[in-house]
Amino acid sequence: MTRSIRIHEFGNPDVLQIEDVAVGEPRAGEVRLRIHAIGLNRTELTLRSGRAPVKPALPSGIGFEAAGVIEALGPEVTGFAVGDRVALVPAYGAAQYSLYGEVSLAPARSLVAIPEHVSFVEAAATWAAYGTAWAGLVAVGRLAAGQTLLISAASSSVGLAAIQIANRVGARPLALTRSRAKADALLRHGAAAVVATGEQDVVAQVKRLTDGKGAELVFDPVGGPGFADLARATANGGTLVLYGALATDLTVIPPFDILARDLTVRGLALTARTRDDAQLAALKRFVSDGLADGTLCPAIDRTFPFDEIAAAHRFIEAGEQVGKIVVTV
Amino acid sequence: MTRSIRIHEFGNPDVLQIEDVAVGEPRAGEVRLRIHAIGLNRTELTLRSGRAPVKPALPSGIGFEAAGVIEALGPEVTGFAVGDRVALVPAYGAAQYSLYGEVSLAPARSLVAIPEHVSFVEAAATWAAYGTAWAGLVAVGRLAAGQTLLISAASSSVGLAAIQIANRVGARPLALTRSRAKADALLRHGAAAVVATGEQDVVAQVKRLTDGKGAELVFDPVGGPGFADLARATANGGTLVLYGALATDLTVIPPFDILARDLTVRGLALTARTRDDAQLAALKRFVSDGLADGTLCPAIDRTFPFDEIAAAHRFIEAGEQVGKIVVTV
Repeated sequence: MTRSIRIHEFGNPDVLQIEDVAVGEPRAGEVRLRIHAIGLNRTELTLRSGRAPVKPALPSGIGFEAAGVIEALGPEVTGFAVGDRVALVPAYGAAQYSLYGEVSLAPARSLVAIPEHVSFVEAAATWAAYGTAWAGLVAVGRLAAGQTLLISAASSSVGLAAIQIANRVGARPLALTRSRAKADALLRHGAAAVVATGEQDVVAQVKRLTDGKGAELVFDPVGGPGFADLARATANGGTLVLYGALATDLTVIPPFDILARDLTVRGLALTARTRDDAQLAALKRFVSDGLADGTLCPAIDRTFPFDEIAAAHRFIEAGEQVGKIVVTV
Repeated sequence: MTRSIRIHEFGNPDVLQIEDVAVGEPRAGEVRLRIHAIGLNRTELTLRSGRAPVKPALPSGIGFEAAGVIEALGPEVTGFAVGDRVALVPAYGAAQYSLYGEVSLAPARSLVAIPEHVSFVEAAATWAAYGTAWAGLVAVGRLAAGQTLLISAASSSVGLAAIQIANRVGARPLALTRSRAKADALLRHGAAAVVATGEQDVVAQVKRLTDGKGAELVFDPVGGPGFADLARATANGGTLVLYGALATDLTVIPPFDILARDLTVRGLALTARTRDDAQLAALKRFVSDGLADGTLCPAIDRTFPFDEIAAAHRFIEAGEQVGKIVVTV
């Protein structure tokens, strides 16, 4: 028996219960992992709270991102061996495996080897954030050198990954954050400029920073009524990639802007990309190259021990972090 | 002096005033047209009412689409001669020329010759409707044979043009209309099936008609709160083309649908396409070919004489027509 986190009901972080479970043998295409670090993501918070539109049967395991050591190989798994240090690229639902656990099954196609100099904590902080930013900026957004990228919730792990990827492709990342409190940190992490949405007029500031043109690409996990201003801050012919639904209010688009200015709004779920073999391979290659040459480097705000998973969720909900929250096992 | 319709204030159809005006000589790249028929479009109604976000200085001429005879050529105009019967492909604002008039200047790049067997009324009913449908379905939507197209406001001139273009490319047009009243007419015009939005559950009906899959492409001039249901009726990975803003309420997108199901919302203004020479040429070719082989054929609901322009606007606002309203001069 090993310890695993399960939910018996949807609700606040206290529904995350540590229980003894038996993890079976890996099926075809799966491995069994001894988990060393768990990357936390908004997708698990949405699942846990009951806000996710597709809900798992309860009780359910939970977890989207982890790093560890292969303990056993299922049938038809090639290219990996027992004892390998590996991380997972999310290509499955947040209730499909029990990655919030000491031991979990995991799909072999999501595995990437962890280079020797990289820790389990860093590896568990990499793939959801860079994967989402790669999907939004590169695969869907086709961000090009010289273009301006507008990033909302820029201090999140995905936001910081987007800043780095924008710089890597020669684009200009403008960071949106609620107050000036995180501005210095965002500039240190590579933002070309910071706009404090609670204190400044977003549309006017973005226009000012782009000679009146607006941003060619917008990368937003919030939606809601504020989405209308992001549309107004988008350049003619530009694209808004919506990759989350943090706002609980309806996402609104200003019709005349989207019509007359030829805008595109694109929904993005990482797993809709990573289900495709070619895109999964392209993602692994792009991010691995960036990690190797140092242009990409995951920012970790804080780690929590396994037993404090509920506190870790509460910490993310408070929204004070800059970068990734990782749980160590 | 010739008679032309001008507006001195924004408001109801009575602001359309017939006045004597002097039309000057065509400038470089322009012609002067003796107008025989005027195609009416929602874009002029939006302009006239004051709802358009960009408003012309008043008093202003008005008009988006017309057919007539060339009276004079400006400098640098080639390929056309005085006396030619021509129609216009809209590639300018609805207040840029005075096409609601007996005589108007017009840009030569928008001209298309009218074939001998085609009347001025038919020619004036062609290019805004087929141009918009071509832009949405072919240029932006890349509608393919075997796909399903969902068309809202299907009995409008653009809606009927979309039905014909869908059939021309081998796609399956599903028509949305408010009540069953226009269902038979829509089926006669080529719709594969009709859903009455005021009487039936749009999402359930579209799912039923597509084996649960939804429509690959949605073509909507309305927006507003109903846009959320159109998104839910869209197939995974599908696109919604929004080409108008008839709804006065905010256009709402359901965030989890657009995210998890990889949807794209695309704003479309015809003139944003026709400003580009290559796209204008492709549009002229596609529509001319379709008119020549009979797969495209403009549906005219009713004509009004020039002096009854206000009545014609009121008739469109009442929304009982199936097809185009044309004013004869």
